[in-house]
Amino acid sequence: MSGCEWVVDAHGCEAAALASLDKLGRLFASLQTGLGLHPVRETLWHQFPAGIQGSPGGITGLSLLAESHLTCHTFPEHGSLCLNLFCCRYRPDWDFETYLKAEFGAARVRVRRLERPYQGEDEPQERALSQLRSADRVPLV
Amino acid sequence: MSGCEWVVDAHGCEAAALASLDKLGRLFASLQTGLGLHPVRETLWHQFPAGIQGSPGGITGLSLLAESHLTCHTFPEHGSLCLNLFCCRYRPDWDFETYLKAEFGAARVRVRRLERPYQGEDEPQERALSQLRSADRVPLV
Repeated sequence: MSGCEWVVDAHGCEAAALASLDKLGRLFASLQTGLGLHPVRETLWHQFPAGIQGSPGGITGLSLLAESHLTCHTFPEHGSLCLNLFCCRYRPDWDFETYLKAEFGAARVRVRRLERPYQGEDEPQERALSQLRSADRVPLV
Repeated sequence: MSGCEWVVDAHGCEAAALASLDKLGRLFASLQTGLGLHPVRETLWHQFPAGIQGSPGGITGLSLLAESHLTCHTFPEHGSLCLNLFCCRYRPDWDFETYLKAEFGAARVRVRRLERPYQGEDEPQERALSQLRSADRVPLV
C-alpha cells in the first residue's frame, strides 16, 4: 500500500493573506472538509516575529491527521507559501492552484505528487488495489 | 532563497522500534542536535491504537521548528517509517540511512531531496549564494 504526498509551492501571493491566521485556518478547513481528513489534535500554529524590513511575520501550521499530516509555512516577505499534505490512505487530487490563486492571490503554483510507499516489497497483495485507486484520481474543481 | 526538504522512506524495520516513543524521540533529538535545529514548540506525538492483527500501533510525530518542520509516521505492521525534514535555511545532508539501519533495523532507506524555493523569481540576489551553499553539502557520518 502506498501513501501519497502533495508538495505545493505558491509564489507571488499577497503578503497580508500569508500573515493571516484566519486565511490559513480556512485553507486547512477546506482541505480537511474537501478531502475527508480527520485531525486527531488541535492544529499547531505559530506566527514568527515581523521581519526587519517591516514585513509581517510568517506563519507555520502543523495538523496531525488520522491520514498523516498537513503542514504549511508562509513567507510574506517573499510572497510565498509552502504546503505539504501527506495521506497514508487514498485521497483524490485537490485543486490547490485554483484555491491559492483565489484566496492568496498566488501568481504561480507548483504541485508535486510523491508516492510514499509504506508497505514492504514482500507484501504485494495491496498493489493491485493501489493501482486501481490511482486510475480514478481526478482534480477537484 | 531556496529551502530544502528531505523525504525519507525506510522499509524492513523492526516493529518494536517503530512503536517506541523513546526511539523516535531520540531520532528527533539526534536530528535536532546534529543539524542545529530549533524547536519552537513541544513535539506533538500521537500513538494510534494497535492493529487488528495484534501489531503495535503506529506513531506520528510533528515538530515545529524555527527552520520549518520535522515529521515522522511509523507503520509497525508494515515495518516502515516515513520522515520529512523541511529546512527553510541551509543545512547539510544527514546520514539518515546509517541511523535508521542501526537504530530501527531498516533493510532499505530511500532519501529524496527536494528544493523548496520560497523566494520569488523577481528576487534573484540570493541565487548565487544558494548555489554556493549547494556545493558544500556533504553526508554526515
